[in-house]
Amino acid sequence: MSDSTARETIQYQDQDGKQQSHLLTLPMEAAQADREPHSYERWLISKLLRMAGSPPVRFQLWNGEFVEPERVQAEFTIRLNDHKALLSLVTNPNLAFGDLFSSGRLQVDGDLAELMATLYRHVHNARQRWPRWLEALWRNHAPRSTGESEAKENIHHHYDLGNEFYQLWLDNAEMQYTCAYYESPDITLEQAQLAKLEHVCRKLRLKPGMTVAEAGCGWGGLGRYMAREYGVKVHAYNISKEQLAYARAEAKRQNLDHLVEYIEDDYRNIAGRYDAFVSIGMLEHVGKENFPAMSELIRRVLKPNGLALLHSIGRNRPMLMNAWIEKRIFPGAYPPSISEFMSICENGEFSVLDVENLRLHYAQTLTHWMERFQDHRQQVIDMYDEHFARAWEMYLAGSTAAFRAGSLQLFQVVFTHGANNDLPQNRRDLYESPAAPEAR
Amino acid sequence: MSDSTARETIQYQDQDGKQQSHLLTLPMEAAQADREPHSYERWLISKLLRMAGSPPVRFQLWNGEFVEPERVQAEFTIRLNDHKALLSLVTNPNLAFGDLFSSGRLQVDGDLAELMATLYRHVHNARQRWPRWLEALWRNHAPRSTGESEAKENIHHHYDLGNEFYQLWLDNAEMQYTCAYYESPDITLEQAQLAKLEHVCRKLRLKPGMTVAEAGCGWGGLGRYMAREYGVKVHAYNISKEQLAYARAEAKRQNLDHLVEYIEDDYRNIAGRYDAFVSIGMLEHVGKENFPAMSELIRRVLKPNGLALLHSIGRNRPMLMNAWIEKRIFPGAYPPSISEFMSICENGEFSVLDVENLRLHYAQTLTHWMERFQDHRQQVIDMYDEHFARAWEMYLAGSTAAFRAGSLQLFQVVFTHGANNDLPQNRRDLYESPAAPEAR
Repeated sequence: MSDSTARETIQYQDQDGKQQSHLLTLPMEAAQADREPHSYERWLISKLLRMAGSPPVRFQLWNGEFVEPERVQAEFTIRLNDHKALLSLVTNPNLAFGDLFSSGRLQVDGDLAELMATLYRHVHNARQRWPRWLEALWRNHAPRSTGESEAKENIHHHYDLGNEFYQLWLDNAEMQYTCAYYESPDITLEQAQLAKLEHVCRKLRLKPGMTVAEAGCGWGGLGRYMAREYGVKVHAYNISKEQLAYARAEAKRQNLDHLVEYIEDDYRNIAGRYDAFVSIGMLEHVGKENFPAMSELIRRVLKPNGLALLHSIGRNRPMLMNAWIEKRIFPGAYPPSISEFMSICENGEFSVLDVENLRLHYAQTLTHWMERFQDHRQQVIDMYDEHFARAWEMYLAGSTAAFRAGSLQLFQVVFTHGANNDLPQNRRDLYESPAAPEAR
Repeated sequence: MSDSTARETIQYQDQDGKQQSHLLTLPMEAAQADREPHSYERWLISKLLRMAGSPPVRFQLWNGEFVEPERVQAEFTIRLNDHKALLSLVTNPNLAFGDLFSSGRLQVDGDLAELMATLYRHVHNARQRWPRWLEALWRNHAPRSTGESEAKENIHHHYDLGNEFYQLWLDNAEMQYTCAYYESPDITLEQAQLAKLEHVCRKLRLKPGMTVAEAGCGWGGLGRYMAREYGVKVHAYNISKEQLAYARAEAKRQNLDHLVEYIEDDYRNIAGRYDAFVSIGMLEHVGKENFPAMSELIRRVLKPNGLALLHSIGRNRPMLMNAWIEKRIFPGAYPPSISEFMSICENGEFSVLDVENLRLHYAQTLTHWMERFQDHRQQVIDMYDEHFARAWEMYLAGSTAAFRAGSLQLFQVVFTHGANNDLPQNRRDLYESPAAPEAR
């Protein structure tokens, strides 16, 4: 028996907080050379599907044989090209699914984003019934550190892939790599991104001559928009050199460089006092442990009657980031729940004025990105390789799915100092005219 | 020395969590019969003013003499009618101010709400510098359990004071005893209360034929409004007999009793499944310890695509209720911060869609209530007595001040089940036409 099995011991805490271990026994052949599927492997797939809440998914094994789901009609097929892929998938599905897909060892028939959304929904419902050892085996891990030096590495890892790459599939209005605002469902990505910028400016109640600090400015689109459309002065901070080079060149080209200054520095070093503080799509990379510093920063730089807006991916309740996304795409990422988000506002004694959830807007944004990515697939392969392209597809489709299934949220939170009584008394002004450019 | 002083020992925890005590030594004469002010008492007032952050307030003592504030010009005068009042005020200002005012032993020259707002602002800034023993001496206490018989009596004392009393000063549109919505600053209380009802209905996206559960319905105004204006079926729960009698009679009079059913029962016993769940101004009386039950209740009764709206007084950060309000007006009251509020949403795996803060709308509502209360002051005295009228003035003015100074917030939170994708994608529809009736 000991010769024909491999054993893995899983450590976990039981409900009383005691350390426990669970011995997982797997047949040794599973780790050997390619061959006909073992009956144990068919059983593992059935078990995997049951543990995942019985989604309408069938598997095709490396010999061409199908393993159908029980009691449901399959809507998707996952093809496994070798038996080792199955073993990875069973022992660490959160990480392995993305890795196997990227390398082509796992393939999908059917819409990838729809499959992922289906999996997320089923797993979400099923996991309440998981035994503790399975919860421990399949858990996601704590995000990596986001101190200043690590933040640089984390950001470089993703954001310095090259402006040329992002230009292939982001909007060609202001290169926004954050959730757009689909004021009406049929507008273009460009319109929706400009509508997002406009919606943010309206929420900040910008007026000509005001000063704005922006933390994490990407390619600088918001800064230029605020300067151009609202006549405000912007200090925009970023630590990605490639993005800053683009941002500065573009501001110069548009004759906005007297109004927008792009500063290469960590957000923690923002200096001065401003009428508005804004950060779009940075907080999910900041890490919970830096929320107190974020809170102090905003307290320090925001004038007494100033307005702050943070736009971030979030959660319905505190949860760790998906392992594959955190490991392969966004190191250090941690989307906060509102209660976690509130530690920024409550520690700073801010008054929260407005929270809006734009969850499905991000699903639509990602769908648009995916379409454009597919249109330029060959160019991406020429720039990188097939593995890179598939990894990116998994990331875009998986993220679309997470927003559709409700695993991720998108929060825009507006707040001010607690004693600020100089406020618009309702939000009607945000809706007085369309935010999207064509309709204006 | 021991003959001429009274001593009080204050217990408190130091920053390391160790139990400490501070001996407060007061002159014995302070507890004796009326007489000329002692120089120690003048010193106590100066100390009190400094500890309160040096507000522009002077004191007039029982012999007519003034004690001016240091370094500021007095804008308000607090008159103390006897020396024992001073002792109470110094040792327990949160509770004593309201009690002394109610009994007429403390009187105020100048606008009471403005004085209170000034005090709240100064104390808020000053308390960061308080020594631990003072923090311990002046602290507010944990709210009483809503199950205690004393609390029940007091709640009965507040809400069952008689419809006749509330009719004197609440709006005569729908008798709303919650924050109104001043869509424009110059509308009447009646318009603003109807605008609130309309704003809530719009946020719930009500359509004819839908079903709504309401927890804590007061005099039933929202239920009737929803039935009349939106053609929905309402089950409205309340435990106040007097309010229910009014609510039922009024629904019958308006021929709405086939649509609105008023049910005398605890909110925890709400039965059925509904397209919408709404609770206006009840959560601040529910108590944090009952938030898990609230969360489970809404999970149970809200249909998969249903929307829930909770409207509650809140805080910028977790804090205990003012001692006087908690003891004399609203036993068991605890206005939650958003992070505390979120325990309802996050434990229930709800997705929060919208948070709006209507803080200054409540200040204006309270100002309108106070004006009407003053117009009917003699009637109130005839129904009760001078002490009651002054206590009510303190409550209305103090609450106005708390909203103006930012000590209290008013949150409207809209949420739904996590998997609900059947949602309006923006909030434009809330603002398509005026919510206030005259302008519609």
